Formats: sequence, C-alpha cells, structure tokens
Amino acid sequence: MKPPGHPHLNGHSILAGDEVPGTGDAWYAAAAASGEPFGPALHDASAEQVAEAARLAAATARDFRALPPGRRAAFLDACAEEIEALGDGLLELTARETGLTRPRLAGERARTCRQLRVFAELVRDGAVAGARTDSATGGTDLRLRRIPLGPVAVFGAGNFPLAFSVAGGDTASALAAGCPVVVKSHPAHPGTGEAVARALTAAAQRTGMPPGVFSLLVGRAHRVGLALVQDPRITAVGFTGSRAGGLALVAAAGARPVPVPVHAELSAVNPVIVLDGALADPEREAEGYAASLTLGAGQFCTNPGLLLLPAGPSGDAFLAAAARAVRNTPGQVMLTPGICRAYAEGVRRWAAVDGVREVARGAPGQGRYAPAPALFTCDTAVYTAHRDLHGEVFGAAGLVVRWSGTRQLLSLLEHLEGQLTATVHGTEADGATAARLLPVLEERAGRVLWGGWPTGVEVSHAMVHGGPWPATTSPGATSVGALAVERWLRPVCYQSFPGTLLPPELRDTDPPEAAALPPGGRPLR
Amino acid sequence: MKPPGHPHLNGHSILAGDEVPGTGDAWYAAAAASGEPFGPALHDASAEQVAEAARLAAATARDFRALPPGRRAAFLDACAEEIEALGDGLLELTARETGLTRPRLAGERARTCRQLRVFAELVRDGAVAGARTDSATGGTDLRLRRIPLGPVAVFGAGNFPLAFSVAGGDTASALAAGCPVVVKSHPAHPGTGEAVARALTAAAQRTGMPPGVFSLLVGRAHRVGLALVQDPRITAVGFTGSRAGGLALVAAAGARPVPVPVHAELSAVNPVIVLDGALADPEREAEGYAASLTLGAGQFCTNPGLLLLPAGPSGDAFLAAAARAVRNTPGQVMLTPGICRAYAEGVRRWAAVDGVREVARGAPGQGRYAPAPALFTCDTAVYTAHRDLHGEVFGAAGLVVRWSGTRQLLSLLEHLEGQLTATVHGTEADGATAARLLPVLEERAGRVLWGGWPTGVEVSHAMVHGGPWPATTSPGATSVGALAVERWLRPVCYQSFPGTLLPPELRDTDPPEAAALPPGGRPLR
Repeated sequence: MKPPGHPHLNGHSILAGDEVPGTGDAWYAAAAASGEPFGPALHDASAEQVAEAARLAAATARDFRALPPGRRAAFLDACAEEIEALGDGLLELTARETGLTRPRLAGERARTCRQLRVFAELVRDGAVAGARTDSATGGTDLRLRRIPLGPVAVFGAGNFPLAFSVAGGDTASALAAGCPVVVKSHPAHPGTGEAVARALTAAAQRTGMPPGVFSLLVGRAHRVGLALVQDPRITAVGFTGSRAGGLALVAAAGARPVPVPVHAELSAVNPVIVLDGALADPEREAEGYAASLTLGAGQFCTNPGLLLLPAGPSGDAFLAAAARAVRNTPGQVMLTPGICRAYAEGVRRWAAVDGVREVARGAPGQGRYAPAPALFTCDTAVYTAHRDLHGEVFGAAGLVVRWSGTRQLLSLLEHLEGQLTATVHGTEADGATAARLLPVLEERAGRVLWGGWPTGVEVSHAMVHGGPWPATTSPGATSVGALAVERWLRPVCYQSFPGTLLPPELRDTDPPEAAALPPGGRPLR
Repeated sequence: MKPPGHPHLNGHSILAGDEVPGTGDAWYAAAAASGEPFGPALHDASAEQVAEAARLAAATARDFRALPPGRRAAFLDACAEEIEALGDGLLELTARETGLTRPRLAGERARTCRQLRVFAELVRDGAVAGARTDSATGGTDLRLRRIPLGPVAVFGAGNFPLAFSVAGGDTASALAAGCPVVVKSHPAHPGTGEAVARALTAAAQRTGMPPGVFSLLVGRAHRVGLALVQDPRITAVGFTGSRAGGLALVAAAGARPVPVPVHAELSAVNPVIVLDGALADPEREAEGYAASLTLGAGQFCTNPGLLLLPAGPSGDAFLAAAARAVRNTPGQVMLTPGICRAYAEGVRRWAAVDGVREVARGAPGQGRYAPAPALFTCDTAVYTAHRDLHGEVFGAAGLVVRWSGTRQLLSLLEHLEGQLTATVHGTEADGATAARLLPVLEERAGRVLWGGWPTGVEVSHAMVHGGPWPATTSPGATSVGALAVERWLRPVCYQSFPGTLLPPELRDTDPPEAAALPPGGRPLR
C-alpha cells in the first residue's frame, strides 16, 4: 500500500545506490496510532549484505576523504536540498509511522537540513581539518591535520526520525569528517528511513560522490546491527537510543579483535532545579513545566523528568498548579507500542515506591497507544534512598522531589547520574545559591541552562548534547553542534615533509590562508 | 642502603603529601645491570590506601579546577623546578634502576620539564578551556568551555622513567586540564617514582595547591592498579606499556558500573619504508638504521622494528651494511630481567618462522641482562602470511622485509596494524611513489616522517604520539603534544546565563580578550 503523496518506497536496503531486497522474514511499518501495518514488505539485510555495505564503505573511504573540501561540502548541501525536495509527503509518512505531529516534524526537518548545512560550512572553511603547525618555531618541521577514522556505523533514534536518524547529526558530522556512513535503519520508522536514504543517495549521485559513501541497511533484528558493529571495516559507531541497546553495541565493539569507539547517547532525566525566586508566580512556572514535560508525549532525550522543588507553600502552589495542568493534558500517541508499554511499566515502578505519591494523571489520548501523562512527588530522603527513581522513564512522566535548604539540595545533586542537561530556575536574588549549585551541575551535565526548559537543542557552534555516563558513553564528546565532528577524526602529524608531498591544507602557499601561519604553533583556524 | 647523592627515599606511598607505608610483602628496587636489590623496602599500597588516594583526589577536584589558570600554571612550572632541584642524584638513581645512560636520562629530564612548562603555557593562555560562543549570532546565548573530567589514574612506562612516568605526559596534561592525578608507581623504577613524586608534592605545597591534587601509590601487584581503575571516583585512565597490561585496564574500566575512558598506548613496530632514492649511499642509510634500532637497547615505543627494503643489489648492500653495524653493536642493559626474557623469546619466535633468516647478531653486553641486538629478514609473502611477525618485539630486534614493486609494497602496508609512526626514506625522484604510499601510511599511523628516524618525540603543538589500535586504544587522541590535554576534558555548554554566573573565561568583559568575540561562533582562541 502506497499512501498518496508518499515517496515511492520498496522496503529494500540501499547499498551504495543499489536497492537490494533483504532475506529475512517479512515485516511492515506500523502506524503509531493504531499499530496497523502499512507500506511495502520489509526484509532484514542478510549477513552478506551487511558485510557488503561495510566493504563498499571501506573501498570508497580513501577517495571520499581525498576530495577537496568544497566537494564534500556540496554533497552535504545537496543532502539538505534532496530532503527538502521530498516535500510534505515525507512528513505525512513520518507522522504516520511515529505519531509525531506535522508541525513538530516540519520543525525537525528544518533543523535536520540546517544541521547538514552547518557541517557543510565547517568543511568548507577548514575547521574540520584543524590544521596546526610548529613550522615557525625553528625546531623540526611538524604539521598536524585531522583525518577521518574511516567507515562509521550509525544507529538513529526513534524519537527524532529526521534529526537523529538516517540524515541526523551522527550521519551529517561523520560525512563532514570525511567518513563513509552505513546506517542501520530504525525499525520504528523504516519508511522515513528509506525515503531519506534515497534523498542522500540522490545527493551523492548528483554531486559525483564515490559510490559507497552512504548505505542503508534494513534491520529489525539485533543481529543486523551487531554484525555491522562487528565488521572489521567499521571504524567507529554512533548510537542514540536505549541504555540496553547502546550497551550491547559497546560490548560488541569492545570485543572485536580491533576494538572501535562507540559514541552512544543512552539516557537522562535532565533535572530542573527550582529556586525560591522562580516561584513568584507558581502558576506560570507550573504551566511551563507541564508543557515541557508533556511536549511530544515527553519523548525527548532532554525531557525534564526530574524537578527539584522547594518545600513550603510556594512549592505547594506550584505542585497544585502543575497537577492541574497535567490533568488537563491528554495523552499523545507514543512512538511504538513497545515504548508505550515501557512507559506504563515505568510509571507503575515509580508508583510502587514507598513514599512516592501520585499527584496527577492526565486522560489517555485517542487509541491504544496514547497513555496519560503522570506526575509524582516524593521527598529528598525517599529519592536518595531509591535508585529505582533515578533512571529515566521515557515519556511524559514527571517526578517532583521536594527539598529543604541548600545543603539538602546540594547533597541530592551530588547523588545524580550523568545528564544531558541541568536547568536552574531563579532570579537575581537566588544568585548566591545558584553559584553554589553550578559547580555540581556542570560536573553532571553537558549543558547547563539558566531559565527556560531543556527540550529543544539548537544546532550551533557552542551547543553540547552529551554528558557523563549514562547520558553518553563518551563524556568528552557531543552529538550536536560543531564539535560533533571531532568524534570521527584522528590527528596525524607530518614531520619534515617536502611541500609537494604535504596535504593541501598544510602547505605554506595553498590554500592562501596557510601562508600567514602565526608562529608558535597556534591553531591555524 | 642509601647511595650517596640520592634523594632520601623511604619506599612509602604518598597520599596528598602524607607518606604512608604499604601493607604488602616487602620488595626492593633492582639494579637493571645486575638484578641486585637496593634501596628501602617497598610495600604495595593496601586496598584502603588506594581508595584513600582516590577519595582525596575526588575531594580536591572541585577546588583544583576552580583555581585561576595562573595558579595552575604556576604549579606546573614549580613541578619542573622541583624536579630540576633534585639534581643529578636523581639521574644516578634512575640510571641504576633502569640501565639507561646518564646522557640519555639528562635529555629525558630536560624534555620532561619542558613538557610541564609547555602545558603551563597552554593553561595560562586559555587554550585548555577552549572557550567558544554563539552569543553574537542573535539566537539563544550559548557559550562553551571545557572542564576537567575529574581524578585521573596514571600508569607510567618502564622505558621512559621520567618523560612517561610519574611527572610524564599523562600527569602533566591531566594536571593542566585541571584533573587531580593518582599515579601507580612503576615497579621497575620505584625510587625514581618516589623521588619525582616528592618533587611534585613539594611543588603542590609551595604553590598552595589543594591537598589531594597528586598522590603516588606503590604497587608491584596487579591488584593495586586494578583497584585504582575500579575506584568509582577515578574518571579516566592514562597508560603506557604492554598490550596485555593495557587491555587488562581497559577491561576493568569497561566493566565498572560507570565505565570510564582508558587512553592506553600499547605497541607499535613503526615501519620505515626505504625507497630506491634512499639507497644512493647504502652504507650511510644502514648506519642510521642500526643506530636508531639499537638506541637505548631498542626500548623505544617508536623503535623502527620493521624496515621495508627494495629487492635488488642496492637493498642487498644496505642489508649487508646493516648486518655489519648490528654485529658491531654490543648489547645494552635492558630495563628489567622480565623485559630481557621477553626480548629473547621474541627473537626466538621470529627465528623459528619458516622463511625468516637471521642476518646478524651483535655481541651480548656486560652482565646477564644486556642481550645482543638481532637483525632478521624475510620477503613480503612470508611477512604477510605470518601474523606472528607483525607484533612488537620490544628491544633491539629488527625485521627487514624485502619488497619488489610498488604494488607489492602497497599491499604489504595495507596489512599493517595501527602504528605510532611510519617513516618514508627517499629523494625527490621517489615523489610519485611516496604520494601513493602516503594515504595508506596516514591511515595507519599517528605520525608520518619524511626522512629521519622515528625515535625521538618532540613536545610541541603539532606533535602526535598516538595512532589506530593497537598503537593506542583511543585513535582520536595523542599522549604527547598540546592536544594531549584534550583527553581529560569535557565540553559544557552554558545556555542563557547571566554574566555574573558565567565562568570567568566565558564572560564578555573578563578576561579582556573575551570582549572581542568574533561573530559566528568561531573558537575564541
């Protein structure tokens, strides 16, 4: 069945531009709202097809990285153009597969394309190569640039079918680094994955990229992803998803004869710390909270699952208002029945903890897969004593922990796991308290916000979407923002090279900027 | 027994300035030349002492990283001064423990102190924090700096008792990053380790560092190092040494409830590719080779263990001359009896491979632990077919593989494991061949040299001492040079912060440079 306006899809893997049907049992995309199957039959890629995708990527890696920066940048720009050219049929398909709304998906598409163009610009201006030199210091002539690691395996996230999937941040940054990419398509949005993969394939062909620079593997079974990570030609892995899934890939990558890095984003509860000053208008603060908590059924990596609220009447007023807001928020369709079940289980697990009180439950939304948002509260002692409460419940479930005094608050923060974000709400009057919290927060999170809500991640040079374990498996890295490209690069030093053999970006006269090397080995750019 | 001129030593661990005797069985430093024990009795640190060192480091981490850059830089400078103040008694002790010569150790000391000062300068000028901002782009105010990961465990190398040990590159770069350091002292030079640890302790006290910024643990048994890596307060590990030792630490770090990165340098054979032009004077080329191969008993991470030599008369002449040079080189004392045994076993392993021919064997040096240098040769087919020949034989054992035609050479290079260095010898006339080799070499090594020999690693901004597995476990990193500091840092984004709460390096007006932020999120420095 081919819904009107949808891109034509056939459910095949795409290996360096060639469409190849898989060999496993047939399965289908499922409409998130109903669970009903639709679209073409999908068949998981065979072990041979996985190996072939890796082989094609490896075979093309040297040609791809040797292209002038302008060519690689043009490819990334063309990826954005081809995704835009899919038109709103893409959004219709993605909305059906994921249950996410059209406006949300339109925004996500814009962000995805902007991200590709930001990386194109980084490639074009030489920031990716990161050239630096000691040639002016009088000692040995040493020049450094960063080169791509080689073929990268990418596993997208279910909750961002565009911005963290086939053409998402991992793919965009790896291609920008000069690494061929093999994506294992996400089984919760296989049609979207195929449509976007066709766009990337068209972009590669249109801009004359060497074949094998991009491949897509259909794979619902774990064996497909594991085989990809275990393939000796894969040199690094990007993953966004569940803790169990990510850790399985980390284990597989570490057990290889030649282990490779896995940059995996696993889970976070993104604490929001409410200070007294933020409760001048408890109603308004509570509305902002409930809106962020329930946005997109709470299915954000940066969803504020934990809110730390002062004890006392203002906090009580906030909680009462938040309860009203949550009660008035109907459930929204979740991404998959499995995620919906996990949400229900997580909510039950919280509710079963002695000392945790259910403050509010919204109404379920339409259909079987739109569970009610839920709000719980407990005090600091209960929270600290129950590690069960510290893990993420993916979805619109909020836990409000009441604290009393800065010392107790600090102690609670010291108990937290690594996080993608931490947010402080307060006013100028809370400055002294905030200054005591900040050192703890920055040690636990990749991004610290003053005011606002953590949902929403801008693609920019100073963005960090990362953090200490279990937020990610690579604390020094970010998966969003300009620094994301560094995950796929490796520094190489060229010692005493004649100019004719130096890579172009390290020559004294070509490109022109390099002629003006500052002394003393400062970065060139 | 306290040799005259030696620093006073007592064999104790040093925990945040406090000397504490260990609890294990007594053991002693051994003179490398004779195996004779000398110096004070040493006792491995107890499990409690390991935990205490980690606890002290964690307790001080926040204070240490909050210090103004100038304070941290002054500490690093003071470390260099205090090491210099140990005088030549240190070199005498180290020479006795390691068998390395006084001139070599004097050079290594100079390099060690220069390295500390290079990192001090990087801290001072803000390069470590790596501040960048999007504040001028009109969107959300995002500012990024890098903060230290937290306490770092360092395991030094036996072959560089100063430059890769207690105050070596890992320690210097981790302190520069703002990480407290706990060093597990190397059992092959415990006296040197203690003397240097005392210098660092004195420097910390003199510059008013918070206690716990540096500790030293005595540990000959594996359990000491494993316990340190497993301690939940350790956030990253630096290691230089054997493949088995490094992989044991990688496994321990990965099995923690919260896994942490291990930056381990494991092994390399550092191929030198001789092209026809380099054989115009085969005698001279061969002398350079033999000197580099046997330098310091061949005990360099960058020792040229593999040389690829053209078939034909010029190559034959080179090999004959190399054989003469090796035959005339007496064995030198190796670092430890264990390393000496492993060398002998490695040489036997090579000699046993069908198709490998022994070309030359030097004379053993004085004493039991100065084995003869050895030179072997085989052809490309034999080398490619025997993985046994690809691993490192630590010491002055050289394998010369004869190649015939660029295609065969390229195929051989494609078979190589990851390397610290790869060196090409040739003249302008070999340019076309070299241009074909370079893409393969840069994919396999952290540093590529044109001419010269790989032994000798300058401390500079563009140096890379790293490479793909098994050269290191973290291909994107270097353990020498300015970029070494990045291993211990993590980016943090500050969103919409009021200026008063921003870290100093991210404020608009303080330090003054930050006022001149360029638009568009370029790195500030």
